[in-house]
Amino acid sequence: MANKQKGKNSEKKGSSMGNMVFVGKKPTMSYVLACVMQFSQGANDVKIVARGRAISKAVDVVEIVRQRFMPDSVKLGEIKIGTEIIGSGDDQRNVSTIEIELKRT
Amino acid sequence: MANKQKGKNSEKKGSSMGNMVFVGKKPTMSYVLACVMQFSQGANDVKIVARGRAISKAVDVVEIVRQRFMPDSVKLGEIKIGTEIIGSGDDQRNVSTIEIELKRT
Repeated sequence: MANKQKGKNSEKKGSSMGNMVFVGKKPTMSYVLACVMQFSQGANDVKIVARGRAISKAVDVVEIVRQRFMPDSVKLGEIKIGTEIIGSGDDQRNVSTIEIELKRT
Repeated sequence: MANKQKGKNSEKKGSSMGNMVFVGKKPTMSYVLACVMQFSQGANDVKIVARGRAISKAVDVVEIVRQRFMPDSVKLGEIKIGTEIIGSGDDQRNVSTIEIELKRT
């Protein structure tokens, strides 16, 4: 339960914090749109964040935004990877994470 | 056909070039072992490369190598992402790629 809440919290944080897009199970284009909207609302950088299997989708989102939608106005920033420990006791497992920054040129 | 060959070629290149591990459909631990072996055979850096859905697995491989197997002797290097165009004509599609460098400390 604590586990599920943790997941929800980070997703909430992702959508409420101005410059983060938390990539999960929705179609890729939802997150592409979210990024483009953040930039069009004046953000100077957007962080695309994902865990586990969504990591591939996060890379897709970044590539589509910077190559197809905003090729002249956005560039790649820092890319970080890491590990989060999810759950506790016997349910504990490690999940890889990625954080990719897109910056206005 | 040309497409398939291209895929095979890059996989071959991955395994034959000294310091690359091309992550594909095998279990994660196969690639972890491949990395650890490269380092134990004297490599100073190993590049972990993947395309499409294998990107998540590539991040898992890097995290397992650097945090569980070689926490004191290996550190994260440069991370690159990109897009490859696969196929031609109507079959043409874009696939995201990742390249993560692990360096001996």
